[in-house]
Amino acid sequence: MAVRRLMIAQGGGPTVVINASLAGAVVAAREDLGAEAVFGARNGARGIVEDRLVDLTNLPRDRLDQIAATASAALGSARDKPDTAGCRRILAALQARRIDGLLMIGGNDTSATLDVIGRAAQAEGYPLACVHVPKTIDNDLLHSDHTPGYPSAALFVANAFAGLDLDLKAMPGIHVGIVMGRTSGFLTAASTLWRRGADDGPHLVYLPERPFDIDAFVDDVRTVYGRLGRCLVAVAEGIHDAQGRAIAEALLAEAGTIERDDHGNVQLTSGALGESLLSLLRRRTGVSRVRVDTFGFLQRVYVGTVSPVDRAEARSVGERAAMRAAEGDGSVTIRRNTDVSGYAVDYPVVPLEAVAGKTRLVPDAFIADTGTDVTAAFADYLRPLVGDWQPPLASLP
Amino acid sequence: MAVRRLMIAQGGGPTVVINASLAGAVVAAREDLGAEAVFGARNGARGIVEDRLVDLTNLPRDRLDQIAATASAALGSARDKPDTAGCRRILAALQARRIDGLLMIGGNDTSATLDVIGRAAQAEGYPLACVHVPKTIDNDLLHSDHTPGYPSAALFVANAFAGLDLDLKAMPGIHVGIVMGRTSGFLTAASTLWRRGADDGPHLVYLPERPFDIDAFVDDVRTVYGRLGRCLVAVAEGIHDAQGRAIAEALLAEAGTIERDDHGNVQLTSGALGESLLSLLRRRTGVSRVRVDTFGFLQRVYVGTVSPVDRAEARSVGERAAMRAAEGDGSVTIRRNTDVSGYAVDYPVVPLEAVAGKTRLVPDAFIADTGTDVTAAFADYLRPLVGDWQPPLASLP
Repeated sequence: MAVRRLMIAQGGGPTVVINASLAGAVVAAREDLGAEAVFGARNGARGIVEDRLVDLTNLPRDRLDQIAATASAALGSARDKPDTAGCRRILAALQARRIDGLLMIGGNDTSATLDVIGRAAQAEGYPLACVHVPKTIDNDLLHSDHTPGYPSAALFVANAFAGLDLDLKAMPGIHVGIVMGRTSGFLTAASTLWRRGADDGPHLVYLPERPFDIDAFVDDVRTVYGRLGRCLVAVAEGIHDAQGRAIAEALLAEAGTIERDDHGNVQLTSGALGESLLSLLRRRTGVSRVRVDTFGFLQRVYVGTVSPVDRAEARSVGERAAMRAAEGDGSVTIRRNTDVSGYAVDYPVVPLEAVAGKTRLVPDAFIADTGTDVTAAFADYLRPLVGDWQPPLASLP
Repeated sequence: MAVRRLMIAQGGGPTVVINASLAGAVVAAREDLGAEAVFGARNGARGIVEDRLVDLTNLPRDRLDQIAATASAALGSARDKPDTAGCRRILAALQARRIDGLLMIGGNDTSATLDVIGRAAQAEGYPLACVHVPKTIDNDLLHSDHTPGYPSAALFVANAFAGLDLDLKAMPGIHVGIVMGRTSGFLTAASTLWRRGADDGPHLVYLPERPFDIDAFVDDVRTVYGRLGRCLVAVAEGIHDAQGRAIAEALLAEAGTIERDDHGNVQLTSGALGESLLSLLRRRTGVSRVRVDTFGFLQRVYVGTVSPVDRAEARSVGERAAMRAAEGDGSVTIRRNTDVSGYAVDYPVVPLEAVAGKTRLVPDAFIADTGTDVTAAFADYLRPLVGDWQPPLASLP
């Protein structure tokens, strides 16, 4: 089927490379797909409904290349999850603009929205190719070896922990770094990337894939501190106990300082986990120097370090999605080619419903039996994604 | 006076370039000063007293160069502030090792320790050259245009705010970034480095040099949000009210949730200011999307971005200090040469007591009359310190 008029939107949390996917899609739509019109929707699907569009049909190539190198989502983004009625309104707006190809760059919520829009179009017999372009620092899309945005965020987390480890060697104590990831621990696992010696930190790594036991945690930290005189810990924000209760909630309940809103729901700020772990460790380890950093938004938008592999792949998935629109709905994935000696990927397209709304967790093969570290297989997996640069890590005799 | 046996120590919070000063000092001591022995003391002055030393006399040059490029303090550091008796013990340990030159790399506490040791040596008629090598991300040493460590930390903060600004443009709301600096606001001021357009953030900048008024702050944020639909705020951790009370303490007291230790002293964690500002803004602006990031330790040890100017200057102050030891006590400074067209510095030495224990604040000429922004003069001051790289900041029409 020919695709002549393309709409592109960005969804979910921005990354430092999501604009590379946008630029790749626009250039491929114009040059390879032969589209006569390419629109960008502002703030995700909301911009389609509200007809807040940017005409990208003739935007100069050099401007697009500059945008490709710029962090965050140039079109604006949104966290909307439109229901079936909402998706029908999006479809109606697309029809009004005679759009026959819709590309959305985002994570599993975005792919779910696309899936619903695609089904609505089919039900009405309206020809619309819905193609999902992967993006998420969480690395939690099914059928992809990894997702654009993850390698750069992983590099930030790895650089942060390499620095904290050197800092802690100079001024010993306990240091906890809290990493983004509510359900999937890939980003927290990346904290281990630059470890070299057996005593390099992080010494303990807690992923949401394993239940978190508060007493075992305190014991683990005390053991490492007793052995090395320091302990660096990587913790995913999504850690929870065996009953599925968030650890921040469990600790605040224990301390009797939990806050609830008017509906009785527990109120947890982004800093609550860090503050409650700090209090716990100060109280129960007897170590005077305990520090906690919650890395926050810098993980996804720090402009100073971008994986060159990530940027190139983000551009490629955008290009692939635009070219693929002529064949109908689908979700672009990244597949690692393990038959070759070096690092190589290709970009197969899978059905939308294979990705939509589903979450990939860190596989067991990447988690150590102790549950508090990653495996060598994970290190092999991550290493090629961040490019050739590595931090200097020399030490005195 | 000839200096033959040199002791070098690192003090205070590590930076990403403090090892460049160490390497510069060691190489210059060996090659220019003609020292017969160069020792490094582990964990600051404590290592001198405890005789925990590293013999750097014959450490290979390539190993030193690798250490120069590695973040944090390779010798280890400490926050000790030895009293007069403590300084006498340090002097006795130096005498036992027949040390005639002592170099300490650190901030104003370190220079104060050196000053006391130097006076004690003079009182005893023991020949000892005490030379202070400047280092602090706070940029708060008197008589220096800037201090090694500051440019790289400033670059981190600037990159963080550039990313947060792009992120906030994509997903509007209120975002507050809390920056290190208890007394001096130079690092917070660096948040403005990559602003280009009039509406680029941070839109409000709060330094410890100006009293912080909670009501005026809320009004300022509401005004910016009303005008742009978003507001990015840079806040120094050391902000305080007109009575000198820390803002976190003032807000917690207002909320009735202040914690005191057994001695009745207020307990403030590093996350307390962020949590209390978050609560304040949620309560009083009516804006649903409010986020706060406390940047924490990454500001001083993130290994992914280092200012090349900073690294080169850190090496130079180390070299200068070693070569200068033959002339007796002093503190190396960085002076900007404003007579030339480009950026150039030299490294005059001032008496230790001119720097020891004193704190430099952001001058009035760098703070806007509103008290919530910096001036063009500050931008001119900061720009050359971070090198030539700048982040791509393109946007759609």
